[in-house]
Amino acid sequence: MAILTVTLNAALDITYRVPVLTPRASHRVSDVVERPGGKGINVARVLAALGYDTVVTGFAGGPAGTVLRQLLAPLAPYDALVPVARTSRRTVAVVDGSGGDTTQFNEPGPLVSPEEWARFTGVYEALLKDADAVALCGSLPPGIHVGAYAELVRRAHAHDVPVVLDTDGEPLRRGIAARPDLVKPNADELAGLTGAREPLRAVLGARRRGARAVAASFGADGLLAATADGVWRAAPSAPVRGNPTGAGDSAVAALLAGLVDGVPWPERLVRAVALSAATVLAPAAGEFDAAAYERLLTDVTVVRHTEPN
Amino acid sequence: MAILTVTLNAALDITYRVPVLTPRASHRVSDVVERPGGKGINVARVLAALGYDTVVTGFAGGPAGTVLRQLLAPLAPYDALVPVARTSRRTVAVVDGSGGDTTQFNEPGPLVSPEEWARFTGVYEALLKDADAVALCGSLPPGIHVGAYAELVRRAHAHDVPVVLDTDGEPLRRGIAARPDLVKPNADELAGLTGAREPLRAVLGARRRGARAVAASFGADGLLAATADGVWRAAPSAPVRGNPTGAGDSAVAALLAGLVDGVPWPERLVRAVALSAATVLAPAAGEFDAAAYERLLTDVTVVRHTEPN
Repeated sequence: MAILTVTLNAALDITYRVPVLTPRASHRVSDVVERPGGKGINVARVLAALGYDTVVTGFAGGPAGTVLRQLLAPLAPYDALVPVARTSRRTVAVVDGSGGDTTQFNEPGPLVSPEEWARFTGVYEALLKDADAVALCGSLPPGIHVGAYAELVRRAHAHDVPVVLDTDGEPLRRGIAARPDLVKPNADELAGLTGAREPLRAVLGARRRGARAVAASFGADGLLAATADGVWRAAPSAPVRGNPTGAGDSAVAALLAGLVDGVPWPERLVRAVALSAATVLAPAAGEFDAAAYERLLTDVTVVRHTEPN
Repeated sequence: MAILTVTLNAALDITYRVPVLTPRASHRVSDVVERPGGKGINVARVLAALGYDTVVTGFAGGPAGTVLRQLLAPLAPYDALVPVARTSRRTVAVVDGSGGDTTQFNEPGPLVSPEEWARFTGVYEALLKDADAVALCGSLPPGIHVGAYAELVRRAHAHDVPVVLDTDGEPLRRGIAARPDLVKPNADELAGLTGAREPLRAVLGARRRGARAVAASFGADGLLAATADGVWRAAPSAPVRGNPTGAGDSAVAALLAGLVDGVPWPERLVRAVALSAATVLAPAAGEFDAAAYERLLTDVTVVRHTEPN
């Protein structure tokens, strides 16, 4: 048995380091790093680092897909990606010496044919037979119907496999109606879904749309979760500073692990907040600082909300 | 017989289109175009479009090299690139809606081993046997000795093949001492080589360093050439506006064609200025507008310089 993550729009993530980014100038890149990317693959890597067996599926194709799979091969997640004729997208993140956010360029994904989608759903059904839980992560590449995540939620539930959904926009709106076990929107995604900016109202609104539980991430303010067992806020006792890339994926990984292990909600949220913060503290994007994680586990405040759920 | 171009640091050129480039923001790329790149490959494509048989050599390797060769295969230049273990560089040009210059990111080239350099020189020697002329273009990838172009100039002359050298910095300084038949620096490269900013002084200084002829490009001001036959200035009668990418490579192509055809210098310069301007006028970077080229051929002013050469 393993945890399955789905990345329909997997990417080859490329990072360029330049001294200073100047629009309309030419830059000599001093350092090029490539890694397999896309939210579901990131979640699987974090879960593998925590000791869970993981399987990744979704689509990979073309030269970028080949490199992505070559880079994935020596890593712990098992590669069950489905070939696609068109090329997987690349993302280019330009890091400059300013210490601020990266400048990011995201290619569009490959056009997926109906035959390729049918091949994927066949692989997905087979993988569900051995899955403890499944995470559906990230954007949909072109050619895939907007109700795809709703379909994948229903197929997972038909196999009694719980589902975490982490996406945005219309795919989230449609997917949430199929009653996933958990959605993990950030503040913007939550506002886009519910029209509400006030956190509690927005989280309760998202739950009413169908999600059995909602754990929304508010950056340094931590998580606000609405579940059948109650509503909780969880946050580090002091804010952490660093690179937030991958913090959301780490939260999904911890929530998924907590779901599989049947951990009570307050403890799940503590783990998710600690792992997120330990990811912000790690020097490399998307990795977490294991020592900081252990330390932060005892340094997260969880408060039960007393308003009626 | 054919014209040979050498691109030791061949590249996969990637162009991204974004509405507005904002440092430290995330950009959805609307359009991705890939083409085989590097100065020598660009020169060969222009020569092929003019009807010349062309052969390209240099190094290509890794996933970027594979894509580069796949994109080169259906084009006219004959692919005699030499495989290299490390991956060829990519260049990313970000075009935004501003209509200004692109924002350019250039990866470092692949580290070339001494064995790979030896394999290349063997291929180069074999190709020289059927070459009318050779162009040595662009930067040197890591691992290749800085006197590489001087070595390639001498090897070509041992086969009685004339050489055009288009590079920069120390490789130009070393290469020019081996007496190439022509160098084509731009204003910055010429100033870097000679320390002189005054065009005539700089061009004559470059010639004294060893080049049999110097044709320096000064953007919209056209070319200034110092040759054994005299000194000429050539410029379009009215400046042209457009995308200057590839204009220098088109000038090299025209000068190389004129050399092979034994065209007198004033006519060579007219062709080079007209082809450069027709490249600036073409909507796609590195292509030239054939009708504009024909028209511009009658619209370039050549003035013989009367000062002592």
